[in-house]
Amino acid sequence: MSLYHPLNEQEAIAIAKSLPGFFDAHAELACREIGDGNLNLVFHITDPESGTSLIMKQALPYAKVVGESWPLSLDRARIESEALRKQEELAPGLVPKVYHYDGDLALTIMEDLSDHVIMRRGLMDGSRYPEFAAHISTFLANTLFYTSDLGLNQQEKKRLSGRFINPDLCKITEDLIFDDPYTESSNNNYEASIADCAAALREDNALHLEVARLRAKFLTQGQALLHGDLHTGSVFVTPGSTKAIDPEFAYFGPMGYDIGAVIANLLLNYAGHEHWSADERERAAHRAYLLDTVTSVWTLFESKFRALWDAHCVDRLFRQTRGYQDAYMQDLLRDTAGYAGCKMVRRIVGLAHVADIDAIPDATARERAQRMALRIGTDLIKNGRQVGTIGQVLQAVQEGV
Amino acid sequence: MSLYHPLNEQEAIAIAKSLPGFFDAHAELACREIGDGNLNLVFHITDPESGTSLIMKQALPYAKVVGESWPLSLDRARIESEALRKQEELAPGLVPKVYHYDGDLALTIMEDLSDHVIMRRGLMDGSRYPEFAAHISTFLANTLFYTSDLGLNQQEKKRLSGRFINPDLCKITEDLIFDDPYTESSNNNYEASIADCAAALREDNALHLEVARLRAKFLTQGQALLHGDLHTGSVFVTPGSTKAIDPEFAYFGPMGYDIGAVIANLLLNYAGHEHWSADERERAAHRAYLLDTVTSVWTLFESKFRALWDAHCVDRLFRQTRGYQDAYMQDLLRDTAGYAGCKMVRRIVGLAHVADIDAIPDATARERAQRMALRIGTDLIKNGRQVGTIGQVLQAVQEGV
Repeated sequence: MSLYHPLNEQEAIAIAKSLPGFFDAHAELACREIGDGNLNLVFHITDPESGTSLIMKQALPYAKVVGESWPLSLDRARIESEALRKQEELAPGLVPKVYHYDGDLALTIMEDLSDHVIMRRGLMDGSRYPEFAAHISTFLANTLFYTSDLGLNQQEKKRLSGRFINPDLCKITEDLIFDDPYTESSNNNYEASIADCAAALREDNALHLEVARLRAKFLTQGQALLHGDLHTGSVFVTPGSTKAIDPEFAYFGPMGYDIGAVIANLLLNYAGHEHWSADERERAAHRAYLLDTVTSVWTLFESKFRALWDAHCVDRLFRQTRGYQDAYMQDLLRDTAGYAGCKMVRRIVGLAHVADIDAIPDATARERAQRMALRIGTDLIKNGRQVGTIGQVLQAVQEGV
Repeated sequence: MSLYHPLNEQEAIAIAKSLPGFFDAHAELACREIGDGNLNLVFHITDPESGTSLIMKQALPYAKVVGESWPLSLDRARIESEALRKQEELAPGLVPKVYHYDGDLALTIMEDLSDHVIMRRGLMDGSRYPEFAAHISTFLANTLFYTSDLGLNQQEKKRLSGRFINPDLCKITEDLIFDDPYTESSNNNYEASIADCAAALREDNALHLEVARLRAKFLTQGQALLHGDLHTGSVFVTPGSTKAIDPEFAYFGPMGYDIGAVIANLLLNYAGHEHWSADERERAAHRAYLLDTVTSVWTLFESKFRALWDAHCVDRLFRQTRGYQDAYMQDLLRDTAGYAGCKMVRRIVGLAHVADIDAIPDATARERAQRMALRIGTDLIKNGRQVGTIGQVLQAVQEGV
């Protein structure tokens, strides 16, 4: 018989107290369920006396999105906890620490990051995170390099990939990102005002050809252990700290998918800032900051990844063949551009949107932002395989404005 | 405690007798160990009275090749038996039937194919197999299509791929095919007379760039469940029957690797026929037959694979996007050419050779064949990414002659 059941707050407190060496035995713990109830229960447990706190995240056996509900494997809790531990090992300090994982309850107990804010929220408020590009590029370079055939013993990599076979969560991505936006689907969700754009997405065969290539890579190319859902809603920040959270979509896939997710979400905020800053100079400054950040994310990632390659590549042929690293980085940039485009498009016409754009109260400004995001996104998808530099990627943005 | 131990002939007979509904309880079974002792024990068990017979293949916990010995996972026996069952399901009649698998003993009991000959041996004798291209193209089209994201539910494919994680056997391929021939390695094995060719392989950076790309795909691209070692020594034939045997290298990899293996071994025989037919007209006829077979293998594979795609593709985007199938088939032909080249090169300078060439007694003829195989192989590797038709692939052969 399965021991699994959704916890209530009293049970969560009892589990927290049983965690060795954490809370005082006599502490009066406070517990608040702070999840959105769609996929997981999230308990925030604190000892007001000592200030000690933790997060308990329990997977629910279903997903609810916009009223729909479908079953979802509890195994994703194991995948998330193992991904977090691997990421902490490879990129220390850039993910929440895992204190305990309970497979029966699909429960992960981890570091409380309440002093951080969700980056998407921060960007919408016009905040800047000067350390973000440095941090996220380290996270990307370290986790991608050291779980790939470049940085990990190639037989160990194969065994590790077996622990991250993630059919349920991959299916969400395959449907919502690499299929629905390009066809009539009941999952799609867009405003009537941009029905012409949605129709154009459905009819553009040249676009579909590129999406098909990117979909095929997502389905088959086990390059490295991805976070798998690295948007700005999955990043906790303070001015000096960055933490990538919620890697339940982790699986072995194409590296460009993770890098593209970061860039896409910076660009979605760019498109949304049509509205968020009324002051034109302030808006221009924020947008310049976002483009600088996109450039820095790639540039820093590339230099760190190349440095790891030069110092620690485990593969003789890849290490010694002149020009192979350059060709590899170019392919990676192209994948990054294409995936960034896919991630932008789905946030405008697909099931799940982003607040950067959806929360714009003025309908005209919102529509302008949506159209801009779609222009940039489709341009990145269609021209991704031609770009050679991050500057050319940003050109797609300028042209889409 | 493990129940595993290498069987002797008496134990093999006892197990055969215990197989329900196979041999008569009172039958006097004859047993002969016919393996080469390098990787597996192979018992041929017959009831002379009834004529009933079977093969028992038991994995040994090590590999011996040219005096070297290294440990090898017994799990490969499970992989082989599961691959054979999956292949029989998808391409009935084209692999030996599995009667029983015993995981404790790493033992597979299967159909006896003593009435067949090893295709490599047959080709060396100048035999022709008019049904081979039709059979092997069906085997390739069915097994590759129906284990790929084109023909198999994509979540089921991910789960299936977890059963074919095959680090030990993949490492053999990664080392012997995609590394050693291009560097100084104690695994390499070539005659002094072609030392100049071996040196050229080590020094050709443009060649290494292409080998690196093919190696990277072999390491990361889980396109379909491959046989993984589909050379003509792994094919049993009669004029009317073809059976692919020994899929212990099975794993999810790039489709072109299997197709390329077939083509490479036909072309190795082509190069070897420098000697095997002394009569020039006979030699020319045999070579024309081999080239026709190469063309037919690809052409029939392509038309069958496209027909499966048209009728049974499970992926909406891949099915509906105009031109995607053409682009996919072109990539596949290019991979096929490149992998065929790699498989040829390793058989001349790498650890394991082929009898088509090594058994040529005359040193001059043998050297001529070796040089021809290397010319064709390197040409296929270097120009593989440019070919658009099987005719252009064969041009590499004509130029290498």
